[in-house]
Amino acid sequence: MIIIMRPDANDEQINNVSEKLKKHGFGIHLSKGVERTVIGAIGDKSAIELETLAMLPGVSEIVPIRKPYKLVSREFKIEDSVISVSDKLKIGAGQPLCVMAGPCSVESHDQMLDTARAVKAAGAKMLRGGAFKPRTSPYAFQGLGEEGLKILAEAKKETGLPFVTEVMDTRDIELIVKYADVLQIGARNMQNFVLLREVGKTGKPVLLKRGPGSTIEELLMSAEYILSEGNRNVMLCERGIRTIETYTRNTLDLSAVPVIKKLSHLPVIVDPSHGTGKWDLVKSMSLAAVAAGCDGLMIEVHPHPAEALSDGPQSLKPDTFAELMSQVKLVAQAVSREL
Amino acid sequence: MIIIMRPDANDEQINNVSEKLKKHGFGIHLSKGVERTVIGAIGDKSAIELETLAMLPGVSEIVPIRKPYKLVSREFKIEDSVISVSDKLKIGAGQPLCVMAGPCSVESHDQMLDTARAVKAAGAKMLRGGAFKPRTSPYAFQGLGEEGLKILAEAKKETGLPFVTEVMDTRDIELIVKYADVLQIGARNMQNFVLLREVGKTGKPVLLKRGPGSTIEELLMSAEYILSEGNRNVMLCERGIRTIETYTRNTLDLSAVPVIKKLSHLPVIVDPSHGTGKWDLVKSMSLAAVAAGCDGLMIEVHPHPAEALSDGPQSLKPDTFAELMSQVKLVAQAVSREL
Amino acid sequence: MIIIMRPDANDEQINNVSEKLKKHGFGIHLSKGVERTVIGAIGDKSAIELETLAMLPGVSEIVPIRKPYKLVSREFKIEDSVISVSDKLKIGAGQPLCVMAGPCSVESHDQMLDTARAVKAAGAKMLRGGAFKPRTSPYAFQGLGEEGLKILAEAKKETGLPFVTEVMDTRDIELIVKYADVLQIGARNMQNFVLLREVGKTGKPVLLKRGPGSTIEELLMSAEYILSEGNRNVMLCERGIRTIETYTRNTLDLSAVPVIKKLSHLPVIVDPSHGTGKWDLVKSMSLAAVAAGCDGLMIEVHPHPAEALSDGPQSLKPDTFAELMSQVKLVAQAVSREL
Amino acid sequence: MIIIMRPDANDEQINNVSEKLKKHGFGIHLSKGVERTVIGAIGDKSAIELETLAMLPGVSEIVPIRKPYKLVSREFKIEDSVISVSDKLKIGAGQPLCVMAGPCSVESHDQMLDTARAVKAAGAKMLRGGAFKPRTSPYAFQGLGEEGLKILAEAKKETGLPFVTEVMDTRDIELIVKYADVLQIGARNMQNFVLLREVGKTGKPVLLKRGPGSTIEELLMSAEYILSEGNRNVMLCERGIRTIETYTRNTLDLSAVPVIKKLSHLPVIVDPSHGTGKWDLVKSMSLAAVAAGCDGLMIEVHPHPAEALSDGPQSLKPDTFAELMSQVKLVAQAVSREL
Repeated sequence: MIIIMRPDANDEQINNVSEKLKKHGFGIHLSKGVERTVIGAIGDKSAIELETLAMLPGVSEIVPIRKPYKLVSREFKIEDSVISVSDKLKIGAGQPLCVMAGPCSVESHDQMLDTARAVKAAGAKMLRGGAFKPRTSPYAFQGLGEEGLKILAEAKKETGLPFVTEVMDTRDIELIVKYADVLQIGARNMQNFVLLREVGKTGKPVLLKRGPGSTIEELLMSAEYILSEGNRNVMLCERGIRTIETYTRNTLDLSAVPVIKKLSHLPVIVDPSHGTGKWDLVKSMSLAAVAAGCDGLMIEVHPHPAEALSDGPQSLKPDTFAELMSQVKLVAQAVSREL
Repeated sequence: MIIIMRPDANDEQINNVSEKLKKHGFGIHLSKGVERTVIGAIGDKSAIELETLAMLPGVSEIVPIRKPYKLVSREFKIEDSVISVSDKLKIGAGQPLCVMAGPCSVESHDQMLDTARAVKAAGAKMLRGGAFKPRTSPYAFQGLGEEGLKILAEAKKETGLPFVTEVMDTRDIELIVKYADVLQIGARNMQNFVLLREVGKTGKPVLLKRGPGSTIEELLMSAEYILSEGNRNVMLCERGIRTIETYTRNTLDLSAVPVIKKLSHLPVIVDPSHGTGKWDLVKSMSLAAVAAGCDGLMIEVHPHPAEALSDGPQSLKPDTFAELMSQVKLVAQAVSREL
Repeated sequence: MIIIMRPDANDEQINNVSEKLKKHGFGIHLSKGVERTVIGAIGDKSAIELETLAMLPGVSEIVPIRKPYKLVSREFKIEDSVISVSDKLKIGAGQPLCVMAGPCSVESHDQMLDTARAVKAAGAKMLRGGAFKPRTSPYAFQGLGEEGLKILAEAKKETGLPFVTEVMDTRDIELIVKYADVLQIGARNMQNFVLLREVGKTGKPVLLKRGPGSTIEELLMSAEYILSEGNRNVMLCERGIRTIETYTRNTLDLSAVPVIKKLSHLPVIVDPSHGTGKWDLVKSMSLAAVAAGCDGLMIEVHPHPAEALSDGPQSLKPDTFAELMSQVKLVAQAVSREL
Repeated sequence: MIIIMRPDANDEQINNVSEKLKKHGFGIHLSKGVERTVIGAIGDKSAIELETLAMLPGVSEIVPIRKPYKLVSREFKIEDSVISVSDKLKIGAGQPLCVMAGPCSVESHDQMLDTARAVKAAGAKMLRGGAFKPRTSPYAFQGLGEEGLKILAEAKKETGLPFVTEVMDTRDIELIVKYADVLQIGARNMQNFVLLREVGKTGKPVLLKRGPGSTIEELLMSAEYILSEGNRNVMLCERGIRTIETYTRNTLDLSAVPVIKKLSHLPVIVDPSHGTGKWDLVKSMSLAAVAAGCDGLMIEVHPHPAEALSDGPQSLKPDTFAELMSQVKLVAQAVSREL
């Protein structure tokens, strides 16, 4: 950590900061410049809440040197992590791209099973479908609950595809873990730290979505919560951030793919359905995500989007999805990746 | 609701949309313009997930006419709501300004009691202090838990001031309700809908903070969750949104004060400590918030900010807080409000 | 245009709005709903500054139906525009991808010529290089001016590649037009309407960059300025917008590519160098941009990035650029496009 | 400046960076930590484009220590600057608040004169009115040009109030300088560096508006351009930034007032009309701006807002403006300021 003093800081103030750092076990390294003194603090930063040093008289700025996350960092683990969802399905660098597809919400047996068959036929490797839905309005459809999980289980049984579904409440985890192969933490719960800890305790693979108002560093910090409970089976999901652009529902931040790959060893999934909010942008953004180097895609598919109880406008019809898959395959090959 | 058709929409497409609307119980009102046809749908919109109409062939855009929230709206209740925290303390329009003050986290008996005495002496009407803390890092201080609640209770007993404290986990509500006068939903949990419903069931006054990536409409929708459970004792708190400006921790959106007052009957509290992240901006922003018409302030005060376990850089010392209060009083009078 | 009245609007207010619209030549279409009256105005909106209707008593909201731009819109011209830079170089849908490469600033004869030879060898079709530089600081290198243009002309002569260079000042246009093949309007000048009109008058191809705080609609409106002067040779360039993410210099909004393609007939170029601000993200984002459907790329290349007078951190070395080009070729083929 | 090396940087890389710094005249200060080496560079940073050091092998991050601006900084000039507009009108700390009022655009003799009389009667100290208007659409009203300046001059003659008007084009400066008392640089031209230099050369007082996508530091850098040409008569204007909130046209960043006061000696004006885009929010935000410590307000007033050719929805009627002024007076007194 580096403490930059103000140009007018006097010796007493400089000493005061130095003493405080020594008291907390830091080694000190003073550097007097033409205009300012800079204090290097050598040692372990977790012993002290660094920002509070900014309060000391004469201090201008604090520059942390270490990253705030550890277990998720590329420095902690150099090799890419690969998440085993089942014997047959592994996700991460060096593995085939994993496309997860299905409806936003499970609405009925037929809707889910029809979708499951169609996306399997087109090459999807995992199903998605919400049984517990976080909705902006208390009056909107909130999901079928356990009934939805049972339908998902049936779809899995028939198609052989594992499924991912969202967890919103710590009290539901026990139930959901019985059915689901991957637990999803939704964007709005990315900083629900209680929930992160609890899914960390399950050991199950987790798909952690980036919050629309959150930075990549915050996403990594939230993943750190899960890993710190001993669960290293975490996939990160870019699904768009909120920006000044209003034409799209969110702005899909595809540079997050190479950035996360650089900072962390965890696999990265991209969700172009939420990332754009418009079905006719999903194909372009899927191809772009694959070219950018993601390890998988999460795509909303619905047999009758115009009848969907949620997220209809961003859902693909099965035939459009099949067409998308054939193009994804070509781009995947162009970047030396299998589908 | 209004459905704007594309310029090239044909009669069949227009009929198709109209028929679908009629099937859902809407009355239809067709308006053929020079370039486009516009369909007015008259009736109750909650019967259908509107956005999905955007999927129908020929549709260009959907314009909702009603607001998505009801119970929180000014149209539903014209008179300002006043929240009764205790016999002596009422918050809202027409009531004295309520200043809530105290440390970010309860750290120790002495720290909390010293702060409580100081802020009471300066004119605060309520204490604040975190016992359960949402921290970005799993390795940071997470709060004292029930021990913190007990210390808050002591501070309340000695000073006679009620207190507000944050709830992060549905499983803690039962415990916290025994101690706290007001339940705080933190910014990161603003869209933790499960938690919103549960605090709604308690009937206790709730302070709901705006998420840093959330719009005013979303804040109102989250409040709607609480009211829809029968709990109308909700205060909304503006605490800054994340923007392109990086000098301040957040950008305090003071226009949210008159906007919320216009759209809703609920009281508005402003938190300039989180809103700026810098103690030396807290006074200016407190005065500005009062001039903008807020019903109360939430301010972090710590006896020794440089030793604080969290949020030190934005905490005021007791004497700076006292000075702030004397200036707040003058601005409050200038806008015909008592402190 | 649609005028949504307030629920409490009375007949006099509704009449008042209707009369005002009729006075401006609109046809009127009244629709009385359960809660509100909606007025459809049929006719030409440019006759009246629409927003001002929002001031009339009883009006709740104004919904424009037509897009504010005309000449740039897909509705005005269905076929994709192709821009002819020279006999051999055409840019747009159906044409080979055009990669423009070169240094941020022209710094010296050797620097520019070395770069030009290298990027030509790697397959670039156009050179880029700044002679007049918009710099945040008045003390930073401001470009070589006409001397820079002469060096660019030499590089063109030797390599046979046309070049694009930025115009910042209406007074420089006459000079720059003598040398340059394409005029660039930089991101910071996207809404310098005076400059837009003047480059419009030249008839030269223009590369218009999106401002980091501007929406796609605003970019299209700025292009409309150029086209409205009779110059249809406009290419739009996505180069990142400013968001809450701070790891990258900007957030490259690749969804802008299919969105612009849908709304407009103009070609779209992507600049991943400014879009990310980090050279090690440029390759991934170039591949992603091509997969998303862009018509060209603009990439900063410098023989010695660590010595560059501007934008060194986002510049590629010639060999890294060559490697990028070989991968771009593969992705281009995957999306049925030539390089 | 501080250069933070990567944990895996080797001695050769560290030496390489050090040598490069020495070559540019910096003194070197090495600090080897447990994990990383940090290099302090002592000397003048303007000699080298710092960011390019980030390209050197082994470098993790560059931390500048000095601010990039000089003449505008509080460190350069401790006392607040006061701008003399005329013998009678001085703007800045210690001076009475200066309220500038008038229509967005000058539309006609009567409109401007009526407004001028009304705002003078209510206590405004300066007139505002646009003769050259930057409009998003090329088809919108672009201002009356010199005719508008003449009308402003008449309004000045009758009321005795000086006026501010916008400059968009370097070629218009000579003309505008003949009429105007203060030159306004609009938000969209904040980084039109050519224009900044030219108004710098005039020596006239300049009102520089913050761009909606610009940080406070960038605003200060743009002011630095003007001061670097020898013109110290600069006022900075906060007029809202673009954020995720869509209810208001912009988000007025009132914390910019105390932040600018801390970083710079220049006066700060607030424009709540553009800052909110809605007339019914202007009063609250004016009061808040004064409480936050601004030196003046810029407010749009129009005799018939619903007939305005631009910005009608955010303009006040004369009587609403007069009422606002009487409340501003009270808040000004509460913060020890005269109107």
